[in-house]
Amino acid sequence: MADSTTIRPLPAAEVTEWDLRADVVIAGYGIAGVCAAIEAARAGAQVLILERTGGWGGAAAMAGGHIYLGGGTPLQHALGFEDTPENMEKFLLAAVGAGADKARIADYCRGSVDHFNWLVESGVPFKEEFWGEPGWEPPHDEGLNYSGGENSAPFNAIATPAPRGHVPQMTDKKVGQRSGGYMLMKPLSETAEKLGVRAEYDLRLRRLVVDETGRVVGVRATRFGEDVTVRAERGVVLATGSFAYQQQMIENHAPRLIGRPAAAIEEHDGIGIRLAQALGADVAHLDATEVAFFGDPQMLARGVLVNGRGQRYTAEDTYGGHIGQRTLMQQDNQAYLIMDETGYEEALSTVTATPFFRQPPKWAAESIAELETEIGLPEQALQTTIDTYNLHAAKGSDPLLGKKPEWVRPLTGSFAAWDMRGFTAGFTLGGLRTDLDARVLHVSGEPIAGLFAAGRCTSGICTGGYVSGASLGDGSFYGRRAGIAAAISENATE
Amino acid sequence: MADSTTIRPLPAAEVTEWDLRADVVIAGYGIAGVCAAIEAARAGAQVLILERTGGWGGAAAMAGGHIYLGGGTPLQHALGFEDTPENMEKFLLAAVGAGADKARIADYCRGSVDHFNWLVESGVPFKEEFWGEPGWEPPHDEGLNYSGGENSAPFNAIATPAPRGHVPQMTDKKVGQRSGGYMLMKPLSETAEKLGVRAEYDLRLRRLVVDETGRVVGVRATRFGEDVTVRAERGVVLATGSFAYQQQMIENHAPRLIGRPAAAIEEHDGIGIRLAQALGADVAHLDATEVAFFGDPQMLARGVLVNGRGQRYTAEDTYGGHIGQRTLMQQDNQAYLIMDETGYEEALSTVTATPFFRQPPKWAAESIAELETEIGLPEQALQTTIDTYNLHAAKGSDPLLGKKPEWVRPLTGSFAAWDMRGFTAGFTLGGLRTDLDARVLHVSGEPIAGLFAAGRCTSGICTGGYVSGASLGDGSFYGRRAGIAAAISENATE
Repeated sequence: MADSTTIRPLPAAEVTEWDLRADVVIAGYGIAGVCAAIEAARAGAQVLILERTGGWGGAAAMAGGHIYLGGGTPLQHALGFEDTPENMEKFLLAAVGAGADKARIADYCRGSVDHFNWLVESGVPFKEEFWGEPGWEPPHDEGLNYSGGENSAPFNAIATPAPRGHVPQMTDKKVGQRSGGYMLMKPLSETAEKLGVRAEYDLRLRRLVVDETGRVVGVRATRFGEDVTVRAERGVVLATGSFAYQQQMIENHAPRLIGRPAAAIEEHDGIGIRLAQALGADVAHLDATEVAFFGDPQMLARGVLVNGRGQRYTAEDTYGGHIGQRTLMQQDNQAYLIMDETGYEEALSTVTATPFFRQPPKWAAESIAELETEIGLPEQALQTTIDTYNLHAAKGSDPLLGKKPEWVRPLTGSFAAWDMRGFTAGFTLGGLRTDLDARVLHVSGEPIAGLFAAGRCTSGICTGGYVSGASLGDGSFYGRRAGIAAAISENATE
Repeated sequence: MADSTTIRPLPAAEVTEWDLRADVVIAGYGIAGVCAAIEAARAGAQVLILERTGGWGGAAAMAGGHIYLGGGTPLQHALGFEDTPENMEKFLLAAVGAGADKARIADYCRGSVDHFNWLVESGVPFKEEFWGEPGWEPPHDEGLNYSGGENSAPFNAIATPAPRGHVPQMTDKKVGQRSGGYMLMKPLSETAEKLGVRAEYDLRLRRLVVDETGRVVGVRATRFGEDVTVRAERGVVLATGSFAYQQQMIENHAPRLIGRPAAAIEEHDGIGIRLAQALGADVAHLDATEVAFFGDPQMLARGVLVNGRGQRYTAEDTYGGHIGQRTLMQQDNQAYLIMDETGYEEALSTVTATPFFRQPPKWAAESIAELETEIGLPEQALQTTIDTYNLHAAKGSDPLLGKKPEWVRPLTGSFAAWDMRGFTAGFTLGGLRTDLDARVLHVSGEPIAGLFAAGRCTSGICTGGYVSGASLGDGSFYGRRAGIAAAISENATE
């Protein structure tokens, strides 16, 4: 019978035969796994990746492809943007908010330019073209855009705005087709293969194998119901993704995401986190979540977004992930978008309209008073919001929330409203606590010997607020660290 | 040298001598510990409590004393209030919000009347007097009040309001003196003593002792720098309180509480949670926090509370813990209280003014427009808020937030404003995941043999929203369960 009934560690003494062996064994062939594999192989280790599905890619290959990088990357420079590690750090600390992992953010920002160069050297292409319109992703194969609200309130007053969403070029990008994430994973997996990295597919991670000293020396997996036991001579790297699809963990840690997982894959069942917890591993920020808002950024920027009481609560021209978090976490997932005819027609005519997010308005009226009644808001609730907005918009400003002057204009004429209640979904950001070498930390604060982790099974640079590209960013960055640390880890004694 | 350098479990095989022995060993002599002790002793076990300080009490003895009970307790009946377990459950599910532990809440509500009777039988006195004014605690020795916003919006529309804050009678209660919490702990500790429960003081919990099967069979503590090793023949109960004073855990799990712990004691360093995590114990809702709001409820009910943008965001006449959570978590800790002269004078003259929360206004003005400017809010931001409030208040209603008609009145005349930014503090609610028998659960979902827990080192009935009395409530309720479960646990074999 296959070993699928417990997640408790398997004592090495109970292993009678190792089916597979490698110096470094990596669970998960997504962004963290492939980067760990490349670096471990370059450090001289024999590397084996165990992947649960039938091929490489993970959630990364389906992602839009943003990699959050800055501090003055060659791509930023080529496109005329100034940035420094300190400026990037200042922005990230503000965007992440309370609970920011300061040491990690500093480390990541300082290593960001090198990491960009490493990706390029590893075959990842970036096109020297900037996309400056509001939107989740560039519509074509542009290589750089704002992906975290850097140029919007309140962050544009805190750090010098610089775009940091680096997107690998997908030359034949079409709506619904392969993405920048695919074009990140493809060259990296080819690089790994060239370095002799082996991969075994359809292997489901079940347990960690631990020797009598507590060191992790392998993993127990199953393949089509049969046990497969794998020896890791130097170390095991967990790169198994988030827990967005593990119902019990979602209920226990991030209950606002119940019923609304997104940008994750069903394999994200938190197994890596739970196996390490069974060894006493520490966790961090399990409540933190990315939250997308399913509103078209071109419409939002030209409209007024209000909560369930008709009050504005966010600059409408900022990063959608920021709007999503504020809507779900702070506004009970209640939102209405108000537009006038001029704004709506203008948004519809833009080339960056997001077809998926488009829907006709639910309500239309000749006055805000009428619209207010139709939506069912208390008398004056919406009228005063729009009056105040218009009062300041006439002067080109938004003192309440800092929307940029270019998007501020009094709403006039006839109006429409969109019902955006519940228009959010997301994935989890919390996970194993690791040190900057990607070693998994025990609750005692000491590393667990032989165990490394990176990607969304760990707590990364975003422990609260989010920026697009942080997951492929820290997954690749600390994936590399994990590969190096595992490769130079002292050999386990059998 | 004393054993204070690691929190990893100590193998029983390494213990050469047991300094103390008991059937059930309880760490922590607060509310959960004393209730566990009483029940374990009544079930026939020899019980030993290990307390870190010099006496019984814990955070409980310093608390206001609310015990959240309902479903039709004799005290509720005597004071003319109807309640059922189903009604209580309906309220709690709404008050707790997403992530509510439904099975636990149902269990707690169904056992609530019995638990009240048990407390009375164990010597805890309750005076048959109701206090109905807004406030954190009754000002005298009244035994019952609303302690969770049951009679306020939005909850009064969800379940039939019933007061459930049961407060032990402290006959000589004076401001700043001993509290209802003391009068809860005193008779319970006396009951425990009569049952032969032993207690050892000044013992600091350091490690759990685990046998070769993984069962917890004792604890390692230190006393004034010397190791004390304690054998638990049947089980160990963790009743060590929250992690409000453990900086690393606060940063990792509840960062909004950084620098603002309250209603906790410095001994609340999460040690029980961390020791169990080192054995692979699961945790839940580590981000959940109680948050108090330091505003006088009598003033709040008569005023208008606005956020940093001058917008209302809560019914002002509700439970302060609800206002606190909304302010800290959803309004970036920004709040201003606006009152008119009539309301302020009325509030000052009430007998339940909370002296501690009283401060003079920061701003005063003859008009809201002027006040708005003085506070520094954008033009019209506050004026429209008060206009809309007044428009509906003139009709005796508050359609925006559901403040009760008795508190709704247009603000007129001259005005004052209080700067209440940052007026919040709280304690942590998350902790070990346990089953309804208070057995500590491993991340595999199975109980960890020999290990039980209750109180604020566990995740209890409040996993998000909070009601006053929930901590003494579930601490005492599941403390009893822990004592029983430990007492009937199969003997450990030495």
